Amino acid sequence: MGRVYNFSAGPAVLPEEVIRQAQEDLFDYKGCGMSVMEMSHRSKVFEEIINTAEADLRELAGIPSDYKVLFLTGSCSHQFSAIPMNLMKHGEADYIITGQWAKKAWKEAQKYGKANVVASSEDKVFSYIPDCSDLDISPNADYVYICENNTIYGTKFKTLPNTKGKDLVADMSSCFLSEPFNVRDYAIAYGGVQKNIGPAGLVIMIIREDLITDDVNPMTPVMLKFKTQADADSLYNTPNCFSIYICGLVFKWLKAMGGLSVMKQRNEEKARILYDYLDSRELFKGTVEKASRSIMNVPFITGNADLDKKFIDEAGKNGFVNIKGHRTVGGMRASIYNAMPLEGVTSLVDFMKAFEEENK
Amino acid sequence: MGRVYNFSAGPAVLPEEVIRQAQEDLFDYKGCGMSVMEMSHRSKVFEEIINTAEADLRELAGIPSDYKVLFLTGSCSHQFSAIPMNLMKHGEADYIITGQWAKKAWKEAQKYGKANVVASSEDKVFSYIPDCSDLDISPNADYVYICENNTIYGTKFKTLPNTKGKDLVADMSSCFLSEPFNVRDYAIAYGGVQKNIGPAGLVIMIIREDLITDDVNPMTPVMLKFKTQADADSLYNTPNCFSIYICGLVFKWLKAMGGLSVMKQRNEEKARILYDYLDSRELFKGTVEKASRSIMNVPFITGNADLDKKFIDEAGKNGFVNIKGHRTVGGMRASIYNAMPLEGVTSLVDFMKAFEEENK
Repeated sequence: MGRVYNFSAGPAVLPEEVIRQAQEDLFDYKGCGMSVMEMSHRSKVFEEIINTAEADLRELAGIPSDYKVLFLTGSCSHQFSAIPMNLMKHGEADYIITGQWAKKAWKEAQKYGKANVVASSEDKVFSYIPDCSDLDISPNADYVYICENNTIYGTKFKTLPNTKGKDLVADMSSCFLSEPFNVRDYAIAYGGVQKNIGPAGLVIMIIREDLITDDVNPMTPVMLKFKTQADADSLYNTPNCFSIYICGLVFKWLKAMGGLSVMKQRNEEKARILYDYLDSRELFKGTVEKASRSIMNVPFITGNADLDKKFIDEAGKNGFVNIKGHRTVGGMRASIYNAMPLEGVTSLVDFMKAFEEENK
Repeated sequence: MGRVYNFSAGPAVLPEEVIRQAQEDLFDYKGCGMSVMEMSHRSKVFEEIINTAEADLRELAGIPSDYKVLFLTGSCSHQFSAIPMNLMKHGEADYIITGQWAKKAWKEAQKYGKANVVASSEDKVFSYIPDCSDLDISPNADYVYICENNTIYGTKFKTLPNTKGKDLVADMSSCFLSEPFNVRDYAIAYGGVQKNIGPAGLVIMIIREDLITDDVNPMTPVMLKFKTQADADSLYNTPNCFSIYICGLVFKWLKAMGGLSVMKQRNEEKARILYDYLDSRELFKGTVEKASRSIMNVPFITGNADLDKKFIDEAGKNGFVNIKGHRTVGGMRASIYNAMPLEGVTSLVDFMKAFEEENK
């Protein structure tokens, strides 16, 4: 059917230019006679790839020199364990539960210490971000944990919680590099790359250096100890080289696009078009409180499961794919990450209007 | 310089046909309108990719139905922790130390229980495989651990150790699918794919089903618990989809080549040519006891560090790349995995002969 509009929540759409470049490079990377897939991670050519990726990321996100960037093979689910194992010096942490991923992180933390829920939006199926301006932060908490953008439910923290001086740890997977952010607001900002950056199997972690210590839970697996990779500049062992390479191409693309401020404008414009349509018509309705709406993941429903299914089927046939909502919530969801072009959103809205006309 | 002969120990050479296929597929996989890198891991098209990869691997390796195949994002270093955390029911295990990787696994196991060294070849810089026919296996050992092929030192177990009835766990990273093996000889046979199968960031584990239980160390991170991925058919979370896809292409290639018996013949022939040369001339010498020689990794030296360096430099300029020995041992090493063509080895030997003539 030619290139589709891919609204997948992750793995997700990548910039066409990046895929074309990767395709060109795949057999023989820059005349070195081999594929990036075949390259020793200790070769000069790969060192250049990972070092350039880090430098470009530092420039894009404005990462201060006292923060380390780690490329960690694996997924956020690995970090759900690593974070308490590395950071729970006093055996306690506060979690804000705004969806399935924060909840999984909180459950995992309970293996390693006292993990308190200081706020939750589970009472309304995670359809909003709770007021976090004056929470009952635990005096002994080593950190406060959030999932900043909730992929499944389509919510995002518009204001970071008031942690009352405690370190903030944020899973930013589905909003990472979608807009500027102030790294100093975070002790750890981390995310799986497969939503907004590159191929799955890699986590990028931005971590304040003083948090990287040997004083960790003695049961911490060597690969989950932050110091292991920090001391080795992410090359303690063989990393996910190919994903790092693609992330590097995406960073170059983001720079060429104008950086994170421009991405924010583009992403807000795409989201506005879709939300305006949802707010102005009858058939489709958004499921999230307006003040908490994500500009990356937009869930919506008709209120009729049969009609939802019909819409998803017809959308797929017309090149709007992976628009089905998460299996735990149903309905539809359009993930409109950095690499989703404006035309993808306007075309989707046109298609939704036509569907509404035919089915009202 | 055109395509080089890449003797890297890992990440390592892949079959040209596989890279060409991946290149063709990269922008639009089989007409689905997107790249494999962008595909939801819960989509039908990816399910087909992972299920076909598993079926082909099962056929190639003759994996019995009471063994699970797990595709685990990460590296063997993750499994160095996971194995004791999952298997040490009596808190004890026996390790055979034949190189750096076995030693790292043993060190990590000491975090979680009593890890005994029942044999070692460290006395002679790991240049041989110890006699393991009558070891002092611990009565309480939950398993006996080996690294079957030692990438750095170029040795391989030609006979598996007599474990006296205990379960055998083997890191097969650098010999995985290089020749037929009897899965039933192992409780766990696992390996990082980046040496003989596909792009880094993925471990394939073949594990007897009765070892997959909830009775694990209570500190076991959810992602390191075998049951997590076993229950979810390796899709508990987003896996390293792209690496799984390339592994699947390599399995198809192996089948087309005639399977593991044919690979064994080819690999033995390649190794014979290189070892025969090392044994017949003066300048270059192998470093491993003959009975323990690996057919995958062939280390050699001149005995003169300056001459080694000169050889490595000239080899590189002539398209024989990544032939430098591991940073911990020096000298040279030719890794001649499945995808290294016979011509790569004969050309290398011709080049070595010419170098010997010029430098004797």
